[in-house]
Parts: sequence; structure tokens; C-alpha cells
Amino acid sequence: MSEIHKFTGNVNQYEWEGVQSIPLEMEGIRDAAKRILIGNNEGAPNFIMRFFTLYPGGHSRLERHSQEHGVMVLQGKGKIQIGDELFDVNQFDAVFIEGNELHQFSNPHDAPFGFVCVIPKLD
Amino acid sequence: MSEIHKFTGNVNQYEWEGVQSIPLEMEGIRDAAKRILIGNNEGAPNFIMRFFTLYPGGHSRLERHSQEHGVMVLQGKGKIQIGDELFDVNQFDAVFIEGNELHQFSNPHDAPFGFVCVIPKLD
Repeated sequence: MSEIHKFTGNVNQYEWEGVQSIPLEMEGIRDAAKRILIGNNEGAPNFIMRFFTLYPGGHSRLERHSQEHGVMVLQGKGKIQIGDELFDVNQFDAVFIEGNELHQFSNPHDAPFGFVCVIPKLD
Repeated sequence: MSEIHKFTGNVNQYEWEGVQSIPLEMEGIRDAAKRILIGNNEGAPNFIMRFFTLYPGGHSRLERHSQEHGVMVLQGKGKIQIGDELFDVNQFDAVFIEGNELHQFSNPHDAPFGFVCVIPKLD
């Protein structure tokens, strides 16, 4: 079903109506949360649009998998490791991480780093 | 190949390094431009991330097609018709438009309305 999730947040805390924050408490991940903006709940058949928050000091897992990522930075700034290179990213930078590329998102700054990350839906 | 398109714009003009603006001059479309942030140039296999700008008075075509849209408003505000309803959208609103739903984006305001729109890649 078509759906609009209104943004209800502010510069420090990005939130959307009807979207839950899911703390990520897995090995290799620190101070991070996920929000699924468009996914199974909306009946999205081909891709999933998630929003990740990395709090100061937070990071995702250093990982490699077959799914590619389409990233749009929405909040703050952070770093992305792609392969063996580390890049600074800022609001509205667009990043494509191809499948099977080693990558990690991290936030060495003192404000939240938030970004949209699109992945194809696995069959 | 993995790639970063740095945002080089400002509040009135959203631009990215290495991304061209393509004016949309088709029937039913007015004062609109498209930028492909992630697509064939980046080797994206499953989805395409575009950024559309609707200038004041601009609109997309009122259309219906099988591909769904995943939308994230980045710039300004505008309106989206979904089915026979018209919704106001603002910065950071997330919108899912399911396949085969009639839809149109429009900008009745006096500043640019810009949004990311993800579509699955057609085979």
C-alpha cells in the first residue's frame, strides 16, 4: 500500500511517524539504530529503504556481502570505509557501495550521523 | 564500482560532483530536472536512485506504471497526488508509492522542491 511517513524529528533526532527505532545490538556494531522507512510493512517488492543512526562513537559492522548499498547522508557527518580506503561524508553526499565490497560506517564526531541506505530485497 | 558523489550544492540548488542535471522536457512535465545519483554509470544492478528538482510551478507527469517509487524529500516542500488524494510533503518525509498507483509530484511553492526517488531497475 502506498504510504507517507511524515518526518517528525529535529536536527539531533531524526524520527518518522509510524516508523520504529530498532537498536542494533549485534557483535561488531556499536551505538547504532535502524528505522525501516520503506519495506515489508509497506509491501515494497524490490528494495528496502532503511535509515541508520550512528551515535557519537558508533559504527556498523565491517562487512562484505553480495547486496549493494545506495546511501544518502541525511544527518550530520561521518566516515565510510570502502575497501581499504576511508572517506569523509557529509549531509546529502550520495554513495554507491557495490556488492561484495568490504565496508563500514562510523561516527567519530560529537553529533549523530544518519543516512538512508537502500538495499535490494532478497528473494 | 563503488562511488561517492559529494554534495556541492546549497539550499537553493542541489548539486553533486560527477552528476549531471538533465532537464525534463516531455509532454505533461513542467519545470523539472533529473539527476541520476546511482544508476548504470555506477554499475548499480538492482535499483536506480534519482534526484528530481521541481522548480516553482513545476510538476511531473500524472502517471501510472508498474514500478514502485521510494521517495525521500531532501529540499523544500511540495505536493504528491497518490490515487485521487493530494498530500503535502516536507523535508525528510518518506513516501512509498506502490506500483500501478496513479501519482504526480508538483510544486506550488516559491522555492525548489527536490526529492530522491528510487525505482527498481527494469530487466
